[in-house]
Amino acid sequence: MTENPLVIFTPSGKRGRFPVGTPVLTAARQLGVDLDSVCGGRGICSKCQITPGVGDFAKHGLHVEADALSAWNKVEARYDEKRGLKAGRRLGCQATVQKDVVIDVPAESQVHRQVVRKRAELRDIVINPSTKLYYVEVKEPDMHDPSGDLERLRDALHDQWELENVAADLHILQEMQPVLRKGDWKVTVAIHLGDHENNPRIMHIWPGFYDGTIYGLAVDLGSTTIAAHLCDLQTGEVIASSGVMNPQIRFGEDLMSRVSYSMMNAGGAAEMTQAVREGMNALFTQIGIEANIDKSLIVDAVFVCNPVMHHLLLGIDPFELGQAPFALATSNALRLRADDLDLNIHESARVYLLPCIAGHVGADAAAVALSEHPNHSDDLVLIVDVGTNAEILLGNREKVLACSSPTGPAFEGAQISSGQRAAPGAIERVEIDPATKLPRFKVIGCDMWSDEDGFEAMIAQTGVTGICGSGIIEMVAEMRIHGILDAPGLIGSPEQTGSAAVFADGRTYSYLVYDGTPLGGPKITVTNRDIREIQMAKAALYSGARLLMDKFGVEKVDRVVLAGAFGAHISNKHAMVLGMIPDVPLDKVTSAGNAAGTGARIALLNREARAEIEETVRQIHKVETAIEPRFQEHFVNASAIPNAVDPFPLLRSIVDLPTRTFNSGGEAEGRGGRRRRRG
Amino acid sequence: MTENPLVIFTPSGKRGRFPVGTPVLTAARQLGVDLDSVCGGRGICSKCQITPGVGDFAKHGLHVEADALSAWNKVEARYDEKRGLKAGRRLGCQATVQKDVVIDVPAESQVHRQVVRKRAELRDIVINPSTKLYYVEVKEPDMHDPSGDLERLRDALHDQWELENVAADLHILQEMQPVLRKGDWKVTVAIHLGDHENNPRIMHIWPGFYDGTIYGLAVDLGSTTIAAHLCDLQTGEVIASSGVMNPQIRFGEDLMSRVSYSMMNAGGAAEMTQAVREGMNALFTQIGIEANIDKSLIVDAVFVCNPVMHHLLLGIDPFELGQAPFALATSNALRLRADDLDLNIHESARVYLLPCIAGHVGADAAAVALSEHPNHSDDLVLIVDVGTNAEILLGNREKVLACSSPTGPAFEGAQISSGQRAAPGAIERVEIDPATKLPRFKVIGCDMWSDEDGFEAMIAQTGVTGICGSGIIEMVAEMRIHGILDAPGLIGSPEQTGSAAVFADGRTYSYLVYDGTPLGGPKITVTNRDIREIQMAKAALYSGARLLMDKFGVEKVDRVVLAGAFGAHISNKHAMVLGMIPDVPLDKVTSAGNAAGTGARIALLNREARAEIEETVRQIHKVETAIEPRFQEHFVNASAIPNAVDPFPLLRSIVDLPTRTFNSGGEAEGRGGRRRRRG
Repeated sequence: MTENPLVIFTPSGKRGRFPVGTPVLTAARQLGVDLDSVCGGRGICSKCQITPGVGDFAKHGLHVEADALSAWNKVEARYDEKRGLKAGRRLGCQATVQKDVVIDVPAESQVHRQVVRKRAELRDIVINPSTKLYYVEVKEPDMHDPSGDLERLRDALHDQWELENVAADLHILQEMQPVLRKGDWKVTVAIHLGDHENNPRIMHIWPGFYDGTIYGLAVDLGSTTIAAHLCDLQTGEVIASSGVMNPQIRFGEDLMSRVSYSMMNAGGAAEMTQAVREGMNALFTQIGIEANIDKSLIVDAVFVCNPVMHHLLLGIDPFELGQAPFALATSNALRLRADDLDLNIHESARVYLLPCIAGHVGADAAAVALSEHPNHSDDLVLIVDVGTNAEILLGNREKVLACSSPTGPAFEGAQISSGQRAAPGAIERVEIDPATKLPRFKVIGCDMWSDEDGFEAMIAQTGVTGICGSGIIEMVAEMRIHGILDAPGLIGSPEQTGSAAVFADGRTYSYLVYDGTPLGGPKITVTNRDIREIQMAKAALYSGARLLMDKFGVEKVDRVVLAGAFGAHISNKHAMVLGMIPDVPLDKVTSAGNAAGTGARIALLNREARAEIEETVRQIHKVETAIEPRFQEHFVNASAIPNAVDPFPLLRSIVDLPTRTFNSGGEAEGRGGRRRRRG
Repeated sequence: MTENPLVIFTPSGKRGRFPVGTPVLTAARQLGVDLDSVCGGRGICSKCQITPGVGDFAKHGLHVEADALSAWNKVEARYDEKRGLKAGRRLGCQATVQKDVVIDVPAESQVHRQVVRKRAELRDIVINPSTKLYYVEVKEPDMHDPSGDLERLRDALHDQWELENVAADLHILQEMQPVLRKGDWKVTVAIHLGDHENNPRIMHIWPGFYDGTIYGLAVDLGSTTIAAHLCDLQTGEVIASSGVMNPQIRFGEDLMSRVSYSMMNAGGAAEMTQAVREGMNALFTQIGIEANIDKSLIVDAVFVCNPVMHHLLLGIDPFELGQAPFALATSNALRLRADDLDLNIHESARVYLLPCIAGHVGADAAAVALSEHPNHSDDLVLIVDVGTNAEILLGNREKVLACSSPTGPAFEGAQISSGQRAAPGAIERVEIDPATKLPRFKVIGCDMWSDEDGFEAMIAQTGVTGICGSGIIEMVAEMRIHGILDAPGLIGSPEQTGSAAVFADGRTYSYLVYDGTPLGGPKITVTNRDIREIQMAKAALYSGARLLMDKFGVEKVDRVVLAGAFGAHISNKHAMVLGMIPDVPLDKVTSAGNAAGTGARIALLNREARAEIEETVRQIHKVETAIEPRFQEHFVNASAIPNAVDPFPLLRSIVDLPTRTFNSGGEAEGRGGRRRRRG
């Protein structure tokens, strides 16, 4: 008696012997090899494509003959004719094992295929979405054994897909009967898979085999902008990304003004809820048009946002978040339906909100943790997501701490005399000449430095309109490096600084960056008041990080990750000169881009990531800066540039910072500066 | 060392020894004694009232002293002052055990108190509703250990009530924060308790202790009328009962005309769905006004209905129910929210629909099974719910069979020349004088027989307007008994019958019941066509029952239960003469009243009954009359009065039925009569 043929799958290396005639898909399933199938092995969906090897496989000690798999059958031939099968490919459900064989499962045939993430320290996203497609063949009704159509569909899902306790949304009951008959009792269903809170539920039904796509949205709901990625739920591919301004801005630029608006105006919270939901719907319409898809095929959505936006989105008055003890209505993750939130996507699309960490540390911070997973880091990582509020995470495998700190909007160019949002015409890079102490700069939309020939012509279109967040940081840092600004934060006189750009401006001095008035543009200056704003913002950020370091019991961190759009444009060296972040080697400061958005995308594409982040958030130690006396102390020290107490030896090893101060009383102005209100 | 005092609870007889000072409620809980509490033993709700005995309890060998329980404390005194405590009563959470004691738990202090059902063979309803009230004290938010208000409320429900995985409806999140603060972190919540499909969910929240009532609705949604009982969910008491006409009647009197309407008119099903939901809302408004309660306190509702109404209520086109194989969209029980069905009760009230048994045997039949539980019967019981369709159940502990049979509306007085609905003025009782062969009768709203003195005066108000369902049955049966009508169903001539009331009416004879024309009223007659209608209706009913007997393998049943309003008014003897039901002793025919409505009430008041009926329905053997050849044969035999084949010996032992027939070809007209369409 000869042994059954040996089947070896690559890349998994899983192997086993199967009787001659076993379909490759069956062998793969029995071995637990990750081979996709939507139609359940009926030769319809073509998701189970495999590539059999031929020849010698020394590693496996195997010679594979050309007829190791059965010859093409009619189903494969028809499929190839209709749609074309790549050379060497077979349908795993049709090809059967004849002799020993090595079978490769290409990436696109894996259910749990991976979406590659570029940074080395991050794991790729494994595709395992909450909503999946299943093709089933349903028993016809039988008068001798009457049962509902739904019950027979459930039986089919159980028998053909091992799905238990599948329920159906009401609209499915309303639509199902004609669809079953139109598909001749063969249908494809989209099922929102269950979790510990919900049974799996059928949310859409198509007659026959549905060969199309279902989509999901990863939404980063910020105070200022709402951004969304539209993803193919089967491949994980981002189909389109888009953003709109948060229409709530008309109720207040920062979060606390919105909380105040709701306190001062009856129905104010409801107005803001309606505004943000309308903004969201406008965004979804826009993204649907951009991607040229039917919006009703969007069946899942994940939201990340700060606690105030979280509450306003849900229709919860954020009143309690405006005052101690900053009690959230709910901190756990939420599973809702899109129509609960008046969102116009698939009528029973599911919505998942990541958990909030604390009253000031929201689902956006949880999403950053999901993307950057400090809890899996061997070295101690500080992650700061800089926005109007900074969310700060510090941790490693041992533990993770979190807090938020009210940086205010200065880093976004707001409350700065010549500040503006990052947009063409905004100054984003600055250098000060060590000899002349005069500035040169670059503006967004133009690659030239302002002192290069042809700059004026290049910027004729946009003009030079102001300084954006990253520009103001470089500006202030350069002023500090070149002795125009002292450590306590005072701009010196022309005489003290030796700069012709400095000019008296009331009781203090200002620094002229660019005089656009001859061309009808603005005069762009940095005032001492601007310096104060930046000092307070960066002190808030640093003192939050410093407080977490205290709590962790460390004096330094191994690396820093800057999250948020802002982090992507900031100059590490200048940020360090300002003392925004703790002293680490510059190459240990990396940008994570929109980590909150990435976290949302992970939760969208991998349902296990939802359970993971819920558990991670439970483990995170929350630190409330408002009640920590040391926070105030750190804040005062951090008002100095870079810091009145912390030595920043690594920074000083690469940059010389003048020690001269311009006014013996100057420090007083920075010390104990008013705490910025949250927002 | 002396032993701890002995505590004996009555009526349960549970006993145990407890340390001096143990609160009675604590002792009861430890022994599993059914003693209610909403406030969790805080002396607020007064639900845990008990009556300690004093003196000798020979049965228990115990002498109870007057100070066996602690003296009244302040809480009890205050409660008594404010609300009055019945003589001898104590609060179980306040009174503590001091010496051996016998403690009686009065019925109203039991959680699972019983609602008494009058008929001896039926179990009482044990109160165990799906939605219950819980008073909890919630931890205040703490900045050092931030968590959401909901999470602390969940913790309180877990710690104080052992409720796991409690979720909250979205509106609870929106309302909860001010309520928690208004109640100083003490709140009462209504929780819809979970089952295998859903976690428990908070559906309402009141500040402090809510001393009011929550309500549920048991709704019997019939083709003609919608009837509802409003129940107190804590006591089980029926607070109000009310009914409205089903507004769908404008789309067709019987179900099949409504199915046709939806087939013939685009959007017809949706129109009917809207109509029935509007009718339901009108009924709920009406019942709320009658009971003088706030409709938004109705938190739970149970619906029973036939399959067509079931689908129309849910917004499912009943198209498939109009043709073989009569496939239901879904047969399982459904758990929905009131707003899924546009019902204006509590915004997140739960709705439960009992399972359907088959395409023609609906949730109403399931409700009858829940009320009458043939599956628990020792003897073989036939249960018929007579409406436009008859639902028929036959069974005992061994097994239960079910079918439906299309009786048509003749039993409701429709399609009868002088027929009418049961209303004042309708003839409901008939006797024919053996000698004169002339009729006398009673009408609804008058206790006199029509041949008594003063009858004319008594009925001056209403007149004699027609014959209702029970009247027509007695009429036809009396005509048969007194030889005016032969077994095949032909009315004889005046000469053949010897009755002056018989008159030639076209090609057949009719029987004059009452000539109201002198008073401007109608002439009330029974035509041979009326007889045919009744023959077909009763043949459908009997042949359904007979078919189930075949399937069960029996020639007779032990007892018959008539369900439905009709069953309550019918004369058993006359029904038997007609051969509507199998031959059993007359005292074995009982009326169950509105058993479907009772079943709905049971499912409303006892959540375990829901699981029970779901299991029972799975066990019921469904028989589809449409595909059973013997049904047709039984139908033909049953067209004769009482039956062409079955001997009815018990009936014939009490009633003599003339054997003479009036026309040798008369039988042909009854034989193979058109099947009535379902409705």
